[in-house]
Amino acid sequence: MSKSIFYHAGCPVCVSAEHDIVNLIGAENVDIVHFGEDSSRISEAEKAGVKSVPALVTPNGNVLHINFGASMEAVKG
Amino acid sequence: MSKSIFYHAGCPVCVSAEHDIVNLIGAENVDIVHFGEDSSRISEAEKAGVKSVPALVTPNGNVLHINFGASMEAVKG
Repeated sequence: MSKSIFYHAGCPVCVSAEHDIVNLIGAENVDIVHFGEDSSRISEAEKAGVKSVPALVTPNGNVLHINFGASMEAVKG
Repeated sequence: MSKSIFYHAGCPVCVSAEHDIVNLIGAENVDIVHFGEDSSRISEAEKAGVKSVPALVTPNGNVLHINFGASMEAVKG
């Protein structure tokens, strides 16, 4: 199975959701992208359909917006 | 590991998210509760902190609201 990608921005909601997702699907099955550490990935996430973070993009390209930490506009600001 | 519980109400967003969650964490690791088939579980979900569906309650009790299908008020209506 190819990996999911978990996008987040370091907010408390994001960090909590990251722990849950890693526990649920296993760290080896998900790449974690922190926009605060790599803002160049923001456009990639938007193209994938990410509207807010935290969000998980599944191997088949579906976007699961999990709870609500911050909008993509806030992330870019 | 104890199971997660995925609550939903049969809406298109719910069904799509259900497929994604089952693919990600495995059908054997999640109980699926459809309020349309068992409305007696609504109060249990609300006590767990579910505000909207689809939502996944993890084994440690965290609630992950995934995308947005319907509010709990709409589910009860």
